[in-house]
Amino acid sequence: MEHLKALIRDVPDFPSRGIMFRDVTPLLRDPGAFAEVIGALAARYRDQGIDAVAGIESRGFLFGAPLAMALGVGFIPIRKIGKLPGEKVSREYALEYGTNTLEMHVDAARPGERVLLLDDLLATGGTAAAAAALLQDVGATVAEIAFVVELLFLQGRQALAPHPVHSLLTY
Amino acid sequence: MEHLKALIRDVPDFPSRGIMFRDVTPLLRDPGAFAEVIGALAARYRDQGIDAVAGIESRGFLFGAPLAMALGVGFIPIRKIGKLPGEKVSREYALEYGTNTLEMHVDAARPGERVLLLDDLLATGGTAAAAAALLQDVGATVAEIAFVVELLFLQGRQALAPHPVHSLLTY
Repeated sequence: MEHLKALIRDVPDFPSRGIMFRDVTPLLRDPGAFAEVIGALAARYRDQGIDAVAGIESRGFLFGAPLAMALGVGFIPIRKIGKLPGEKVSREYALEYGTNTLEMHVDAARPGERVLLLDDLLATGGTAAAAAALLQDVGATVAEIAFVVELLFLQGRQALAPHPVHSLLTY
Repeated sequence: MEHLKALIRDVPDFPSRGIMFRDVTPLLRDPGAFAEVIGALAARYRDQGIDAVAGIESRGFLFGAPLAMALGVGFIPIRKIGKLPGEKVSREYALEYGTNTLEMHVDAARPGERVLLLDDLLATGGTAAAAAALLQDVGATVAEIAFVVELLFLQGRQALAPHPVHSLLTY
């Protein structure tokens, strides 16, 4: 997997000063690399009784939708506030300054279903923790939380405990 | 394809009064239906010399990323303003009240590449027209603009001329 890092572009000071942004767009543009990422995740989860893949808007959609297709299960979009039209559950989470809110349809998952939660990047874990809570709010089980990239120094895994966490590439 | 309409939920007065929202989340949640949509699009474009699939944030990512994977080509995200970290082209387009801006990395497509542009729904066509213009700004050719759902009464195809347009489901 380490060779895929050549397709993750480091952009300093984005979105704000002092942040090194890990840009996955070159990886998405490379069909072999994109297929390798989806294939590695599909291999890990194929025999784990996953009922659906949930992805977090927007970059979680880019990996979550193809992974759902590869696993032959449905996809659940977890979205920013105000985007989903049906009856919803919502969870607020803290940012460095202020808060954000994620929403999910109440009928997106049924009680007892095993859902794999996916996002592109694990930083502090606040976003993924809110998304996992939404799945639990409707009675689903979070089978695992998977990321393409994990920024180890931010210790996001601690924020996601006791959920199991898996990442393909670490920095 | 018409049977897939049973998995598109009509939500009246969303996002504002008088709008009938066509919600594709039940379709995404049904693995057979989701695979049928991607399979139908992949069958249409497999032998058309497509070099990449571009999807418009966010719902265009849900169909565009699996389609790129199915076609064995790369994916290009076209995003809302301020989301992409690299050097960008941008295009403003009119909404009912005010304007929006879409952005794409300048290195997302090379001159002469044939790019299939994809979004979930064709309404007035303003968003897709801006996205197509971005691809042309970097010298790429828009092979076709494809949608899962087309709202015929809004005559969006006219706004997209002379680009060829294809949709799976019409209302």
